[in-house]
Amino acid sequence: MVVAPCRFMLSLPFIPYKEFKRIQDADIDRFEKLHIISDMCRINALSAVKKAGSGHLGSSFSSIDILVMLYLSEMNIVETGIDNPNRDIFFSSKGHDCPAHYSVLVAAGVIEFDRLLKLRRLGGLDGHPDVKIPGIEANSGSLGMGISKSRGMALAKRLNGYEGRIFVMTGDGELQEGQIWESLQTAVHQKTNNIHVIIDFNKIQTDKPVKEVICLDDIEKKIEFFGWHVERCNGHNFAELDNVLRKFEKVEDKPKLLIADTVKGKGVSFMEGPTALKNGNGLYRWHAGAPSDDDYEAGFTELLDRINDNLNKQRLEELSLEVVEKREKNRVQFKNVAEKVVSAYGEALVELGKEREDIIVLDADLAADCGLRAFEERFPDRFIENGIAEQDMVSMAGGLALQGFLPIVNSFGVFLASRANEQIYANATECTKIIYVCHFAGLIPAGPGKSHQSLRDISLFGALPNCVALEPCNAIETKHALEWCINEAKENCLLRLVISPSPRTITLPGNYDFAFGKGAVLKDGEDAVIFGYGPVMLHEALIASEMLERENFSLKVVNMPWLNRLDETWLEEVVGDIDAIFVIDNHSLVGGFGDCLLNRLTESEKLRIKRFKKFAVEGFPECGTPEEVLRYHRLDGENLVERIKEGTSNLSRTT
Amino acid sequence: MVVAPCRFMLSLPFIPYKEFKRIQDADIDRFEKLHIISDMCRINALSAVKKAGSGHLGSSFSSIDILVMLYLSEMNIVETGIDNPNRDIFFSSKGHDCPAHYSVLVAAGVIEFDRLLKLRRLGGLDGHPDVKIPGIEANSGSLGMGISKSRGMALAKRLNGYEGRIFVMTGDGELQEGQIWESLQTAVHQKTNNIHVIIDFNKIQTDKPVKEVICLDDIEKKIEFFGWHVERCNGHNFAELDNVLRKFEKVEDKPKLLIADTVKGKGVSFMEGPTALKNGNGLYRWHAGAPSDDDYEAGFTELLDRINDNLNKQRLEELSLEVVEKREKNRVQFKNVAEKVVSAYGEALVELGKEREDIIVLDADLAADCGLRAFEERFPDRFIENGIAEQDMVSMAGGLALQGFLPIVNSFGVFLASRANEQIYANATECTKIIYVCHFAGLIPAGPGKSHQSLRDISLFGALPNCVALEPCNAIETKHALEWCINEAKENCLLRLVISPSPRTITLPGNYDFAFGKGAVLKDGEDAVIFGYGPVMLHEALIASEMLERENFSLKVVNMPWLNRLDETWLEEVVGDIDAIFVIDNHSLVGGFGDCLLNRLTESEKLRIKRFKKFAVEGFPECGTPEEVLRYHRLDGENLVERIKEGTSNLSRTT
Repeated sequence: MVVAPCRFMLSLPFIPYKEFKRIQDADIDRFEKLHIISDMCRINALSAVKKAGSGHLGSSFSSIDILVMLYLSEMNIVETGIDNPNRDIFFSSKGHDCPAHYSVLVAAGVIEFDRLLKLRRLGGLDGHPDVKIPGIEANSGSLGMGISKSRGMALAKRLNGYEGRIFVMTGDGELQEGQIWESLQTAVHQKTNNIHVIIDFNKIQTDKPVKEVICLDDIEKKIEFFGWHVERCNGHNFAELDNVLRKFEKVEDKPKLLIADTVKGKGVSFMEGPTALKNGNGLYRWHAGAPSDDDYEAGFTELLDRINDNLNKQRLEELSLEVVEKREKNRVQFKNVAEKVVSAYGEALVELGKEREDIIVLDADLAADCGLRAFEERFPDRFIENGIAEQDMVSMAGGLALQGFLPIVNSFGVFLASRANEQIYANATECTKIIYVCHFAGLIPAGPGKSHQSLRDISLFGALPNCVALEPCNAIETKHALEWCINEAKENCLLRLVISPSPRTITLPGNYDFAFGKGAVLKDGEDAVIFGYGPVMLHEALIASEMLERENFSLKVVNMPWLNRLDETWLEEVVGDIDAIFVIDNHSLVGGFGDCLLNRLTESEKLRIKRFKKFAVEGFPECGTPEEVLRYHRLDGENLVERIKEGTSNLSRTT
Repeated sequence: MVVAPCRFMLSLPFIPYKEFKRIQDADIDRFEKLHIISDMCRINALSAVKKAGSGHLGSSFSSIDILVMLYLSEMNIVETGIDNPNRDIFFSSKGHDCPAHYSVLVAAGVIEFDRLLKLRRLGGLDGHPDVKIPGIEANSGSLGMGISKSRGMALAKRLNGYEGRIFVMTGDGELQEGQIWESLQTAVHQKTNNIHVIIDFNKIQTDKPVKEVICLDDIEKKIEFFGWHVERCNGHNFAELDNVLRKFEKVEDKPKLLIADTVKGKGVSFMEGPTALKNGNGLYRWHAGAPSDDDYEAGFTELLDRINDNLNKQRLEELSLEVVEKREKNRVQFKNVAEKVVSAYGEALVELGKEREDIIVLDADLAADCGLRAFEERFPDRFIENGIAEQDMVSMAGGLALQGFLPIVNSFGVFLASRANEQIYANATECTKIIYVCHFAGLIPAGPGKSHQSLRDISLFGALPNCVALEPCNAIETKHALEWCINEAKENCLLRLVISPSPRTITLPGNYDFAFGKGAVLKDGEDAVIFGYGPVMLHEALIASEMLERENFSLKVVNMPWLNRLDETWLEEVVGDIDAIFVIDNHSLVGGFGDCLLNRLTESEKLRIKRFKKFAVEGFPECGTPEEVLRYHRLDGENLVERIKEGTSNLSRTT
């Protein structure tokens, strides 16, 4: 059944498990079968990402043929079961190819079909692999760890005397990460030869060709000289893949690695690497994010037509699809009146770059997400693209700072603060000044999951004695904060920025003066005060205040962009006679702004006896929509109302 | 003047600057001169380390000829001055060769001779390089960052249009660190060709041959395939070194790297690699630490004799030395009645290893320091030496844990908690159980300096929701803590251990029961209570309590080994009616045990109004003797007395 595109309504059809079973059971050529199943998995991945509203299609499509080959033709897990200690193990080190991986696990009968409809939803399938999902053998999403992890698994099998091979897939850009080379070296020395690494060599990292970002040069030779048995083949050709796997069986004295030449976006013509790069003027736009309605339909139709053509050729019935959702097509999106602080950051960076020639902007393959493209275009000599090598980037910034430059180092907070933590410390001990911009700070967006949600960065910078941490709440404050970091700060700076559009534009008071250690009252109140920062949590605090107002409870809401520098006099003034102090942290419960505030309160004779309560993210951050996840963590306005009422229940209103 | 060894007194002679000047000005063959000066620098490095009581001689001696070549024959800094932006820049990425580096900087007239006498002392020369010292261009001591940093420096020179080359020295074991490979890759792509890396290829890492730890195989080829111009020569032969440097001048299209074949301990026969390995049954014992009096004299005499022979051959006067200290030779050391918790740890590990076959112990080239040798010998299959690659080690542990093993991961806290932070997080998200043992925790010993003092590790683990942090105070508690981590804990564990002998054996009460979330009263008191953990700070707290007792102020001292899990009932009981609560953290002021305690106090209705004050390390940790540094940070008993009196001055004694 072909689902005809409709001018007004968008259908989201998926391919149910029984159709996979039908094709798998069909008596046709093995590789032809795998080819058809791959495209079927592509459809499910495409529809899952479209339904989720985000996800990584480019590298899902480049890796999917390899995944189909492994799960449906090579590995023993369908026979042994996914809990059998003698099973073959596969996991993806890059992890963002999980829409493909989940689709293949559905095809293999490991994951229930229904879960695929809940990609990136609470209780569904996480935006990056998580071991709580059947068939997922390791968490990933931060790059470079996979081969190391496979070494542990291979050793475990050896010590336990269990059967089964270890397959681990990496990206090609991922090879820029130093840990890869540690693990390549150590695997050979320790003779963990039961490892089979497959590089999904699609030649494009986030949105540019690998060779433009940081060229890998002769990667085959490099890895061979690290002592591995290396093969290379077309990663979309099942016969070639099969041939390599047979060769690997005969190699017992070395760990094995396949460079699988693939095409990013393979299978949907306009998403395919070379074409897409050309159409995007050198930028690849299908790495992450859901396609538009029209692009979705075009991709879907292309895939479906090809599958049905192939089924016809094999004299098999055409596919039967399950439409799981219909929605108005090309509907007008909720008009986004709110700002993106990251856009304000990017603009301010260019303005300040004109004034200060000592500014060098460093990036680790996230330039677009971090709002750096305008600076890159305007000041190409002072923009350093460092590839996926955060440690190298941070130490390079250290060298620049020692020589008198002002480096502004950008990445997602979860990578920058954590992966390069020791390098940040080493730089700090030199008492130079470097600005670290932690993008994608906090709980939201929660779709990509816990490998991406940065809820520890304040704590990871916290014990540096010479680093000021800030998080602005809107475009204006972002500009102020960046200006302050560049022109006023004497120390290192951590600038936290949320990445999504703000849920509302936070309005600062007209008389607001961005001053060291001081914040601003966003909404007055007398019964309790809540401190927050950044647009996400201030929005929830304001909702709570608005809701409480209706119950005659007046909650003062204070924006405090300074996360570890508090002016005591200001603090005493802003709290005044209020007896209950709350704080909402877009961070883990431990080591965030709340702990800094608590310490300052304790030091103040006036404030130390007040009631104090922290609201923050407890446990690991969940994956889901913003609403789902804020509610899950009891950080949405409604839950805040409850928690504030609980926290003030034993206080009389007029102490 | 030859200083004759004396049977009873040990002399510590140095070679003053004027003697270096004399030789430099002498009209003799250039390479002969450098050879003599190298040995003179060796004497100063040897005496400096002997005087300091610790330091790294092995790699000082392997690298010293290269340093002498660079500073006294190759680089322009003596002419341009060390602040000239057109100067050549040298720094050591490994950094533990600084006794050599400082000695050469003295010979070059950059550092005042007197400072050499204050190696590893407060206000002297840090145990690892620090930019506050003249001639030191970058901080180091944690491995793998140097080439990245040099990339920043090279780019800075290019952007500024300044002259001068960048030289950076690495170790060979250091090449196991992944960041090296990131930087090798990126330097080529970004064409920062003005970098000259020199590998001090002495073939021994901490105490074992590199090829036994993690073999580098054909390192020349590896680096060539990464796109570098590679040369190789004898790193003790000045003519060969000179020849390579001349070759480098002609290479403009690539960054340059010299593999300098050296001998660890070169110049003192019994410290030289091959001999020393043989004498040590395969272990090299001259990596770190000061030689005994007899070994010092033997090494000193050998060097001096050779220098004077060479001077005689050149018809120059023999050396004139400056004896800076005489001390009783082979004096009986202060009898060390106190324990080493790390020894207790090592013993307990073997005992528990017998019971639990799922335990795997992982090490990153610090097995002896971390007390792991006994386990390694007893269970060679379950001991994994991973080399200097902490990230790879931690992710490997993740793989082992996913397959049902219990990995116990060891390194110095400053490396493990920081360098591998994201890998620790990624493992934690998988909700397996791994025990991380952070050795060398805290401020003391303070000789190695801030690259080694781990004062951020509690904060770096703090925001992991499923990790219990502990630090035991004595041998018995260490055994209890390890047993608990292995047999009782359901979550990940951070076990912090100090590395030096305890300043005193902390005595636990006879009825002490090691119970979750509870500590022990070490000394009763009524006027104030101080919480502490670990032998170093509890010793100071006890001294304070003893001193205060003489002033009729009774300070209760409580040992609390649980750093982030506190039983509220126990806490309320132990504080009781006492109004002033202090905590002494062997950690930074931010994110340590003190913050956890403060949070628990705030949650308790009984305790939240008490007075609370944290004592902890503020600013970066200083380098020096334990006494010097504890006093500097106002964490010694005497300062604690003052601070506790200040903190309680406005409290009446009997509230």
